[in-house]
Amino acid sequence: MNEIFIGIDLGGTNIKIGCFDSELKLICKTAVATEADMGPDVVIDKMAQTVEKLLDDSGLSLQDITAVGIGTPGPAKYSEGVIIKSTNMPKFKNVPICRMLNEKLGAPVVFDNDANVACWGEYVVGAGKGAGDMVFFTLGTGIGGGVISNGKLVHGCDENAAELGHIIIYPDGRRCNCGQKGCVEAYASADATAKRATEAVEAGNESSLKKVLDEKGKITSKDVYEHLAAGDELAREITDGTAKALALTCISMLHITEPKRIVFAGGMIAAGEPLLARIKDFFNEYIWTLKKEPVEICFATLGEDAGIIGAAALAKQARDEGKYKSG
Amino acid sequence: MNEIFIGIDLGGTNIKIGCFDSELKLICKTAVATEADMGPDVVIDKMAQTVEKLLDDSGLSLQDITAVGIGTPGPAKYSEGVIIKSTNMPKFKNVPICRMLNEKLGAPVVFDNDANVACWGEYVVGAGKGAGDMVFFTLGTGIGGGVISNGKLVHGCDENAAELGHIIIYPDGRRCNCGQKGCVEAYASADATAKRATEAVEAGNESSLKKVLDEKGKITSKDVYEHLAAGDELAREITDGTAKALALTCISMLHITEPKRIVFAGGMIAAGEPLLARIKDFFNEYIWTLKKEPVEICFATLGEDAGIIGAAALAKQARDEGKYKSG
Repeated sequence: MNEIFIGIDLGGTNIKIGCFDSELKLICKTAVATEADMGPDVVIDKMAQTVEKLLDDSGLSLQDITAVGIGTPGPAKYSEGVIIKSTNMPKFKNVPICRMLNEKLGAPVVFDNDANVACWGEYVVGAGKGAGDMVFFTLGTGIGGGVISNGKLVHGCDENAAELGHIIIYPDGRRCNCGQKGCVEAYASADATAKRATEAVEAGNESSLKKVLDEKGKITSKDVYEHLAAGDELAREITDGTAKALALTCISMLHITEPKRIVFAGGMIAAGEPLLARIKDFFNEYIWTLKKEPVEICFATLGEDAGIIGAAALAKQARDEGKYKSG
Repeated sequence: MNEIFIGIDLGGTNIKIGCFDSELKLICKTAVATEADMGPDVVIDKMAQTVEKLLDDSGLSLQDITAVGIGTPGPAKYSEGVIIKSTNMPKFKNVPICRMLNEKLGAPVVFDNDANVACWGEYVVGAGKGAGDMVFFTLGTGIGGGVISNGKLVHGCDENAAELGHIIIYPDGRRCNCGQKGCVEAYASADATAKRATEAVEAGNESSLKKVLDEKGKITSKDVYEHLAAGDELAREITDGTAKALALTCISMLHITEPKRIVFAGGMIAAGEPLLARIKDFFNEYIWTLKKEPVEICFATLGEDAGIIGAAALAKQARDEGKYKSG
């Protein structure tokens, strides 16, 4: 009998669902609006119906499902399968999503936070494949992370490990949304990069980005790396600030969990090679001289599908480890 | 039949050996000079003879040994049981210490670096008992460390993880012996604390430590916390520098592996409550406000015996995990 793993990426706007075979090859996928305002019962019902329809379209049925994985932002009790609350889904409070979905789909359901799920996806079939030990950063509005040590995700004592955006790199530095000062997130996320560029232009620094600010009223991280590519000096300085912050974080992570590979994902990696090359430059400039470090620093390869692939991969992993009582 | 675990702490000056029962209770212990200049064959021979004599004195014999653990500074291929080289034992090059000792003692031998071994000792029977996830720092000449995630030591892809002294806390800051700038070791080790005090006195800062420098030609970390206890203002500032550096490192570690307990060991903890209280103060001042962190920051409790207890505990752990083919 063929094995089928379902990966679900539950976001505030969309629910992405993928159906995978036992080699984690995508069979089919779909996305529907979350409509989180309808509340958890309706959303989970829709989720189950969408899974059923997706399977049906491929000549499969619910009985074919071996296991299901879901990724969603926290805070949650992942090991208990319960969403505690959700910034993007205010009606989701203490929702036992694993049990509810299990009742509808008749298959075991595993659950982890979105950054861990994407990290696991990259680790199993993406940029981290074969690494064994890996560190993962998502560079978006904030900076999320995942840490894989000895082939396993590091969850921490209360399932809040790998909040890598809040590693302090500049004590008493820029204020972060979390309340700390000097977090890497306050320098190197897409939002922080855009903010530093905006501040620099407003402070009177010469730059082709001034026109963007004047015309659009704001500068995005995309503007920064587009103007970097066009040769703007300020865009280069801002990108260097991002790259240095990330490199310093990579060095500390190297000394802590000693990953074989450090993988960057998220919107910011659209900046491409100019950003990656500078991260490596700063890494090499600031790393110790005691021994040569063979760690590879690279970009993620799964793109938008990391969430569904990772969720399916977690479901498969739990099965491989014998975590399901039946099935 | 009673189970006996041997823990060996191999240092450049002394070899400490402890004999433990299956509950890791110390039965007897001893220490002999390493005499590393005699070379590995002689040292390992002496080690085996000392174990045999220690057992004999307690009415036991080599046949009673279930397993042996050794801790020693790196670099080494711990999983292969080979010392690559040793700063304090220049004649030890590519020494297959586990195999050699196994041949003499007839029992399985496990091996890890000294900081990991001490960390494991504190975790199993000391300050970290029951923590599940723990971070460990030794504050001595340098700063060593250990990380336990999900009940296991984090070793990293090349067995060099948990070099926690080289987490960068002040980019472009003080030069560290490792070649990096701004490592926590360059601020908060016993040596760095003494050095910062010496520099401050030499720079003309008023302090009762000036007399120490004038009379002894140097200031030690012990002098710093003795003068702190006596109310010296400069000693207080220097201690605050140490405490802040350690607190910032604790915050980053909390966000990375989310330990339940952070344990400090090494000579510096003789500074006692005044140091510990300031680490906690800075931790509370600099930690995020998103949620209250229940992590406990405390001092180690095993003292000098952490090495032999930890080594014996590692030997027992490997047995419990079924890592020995026989025995």
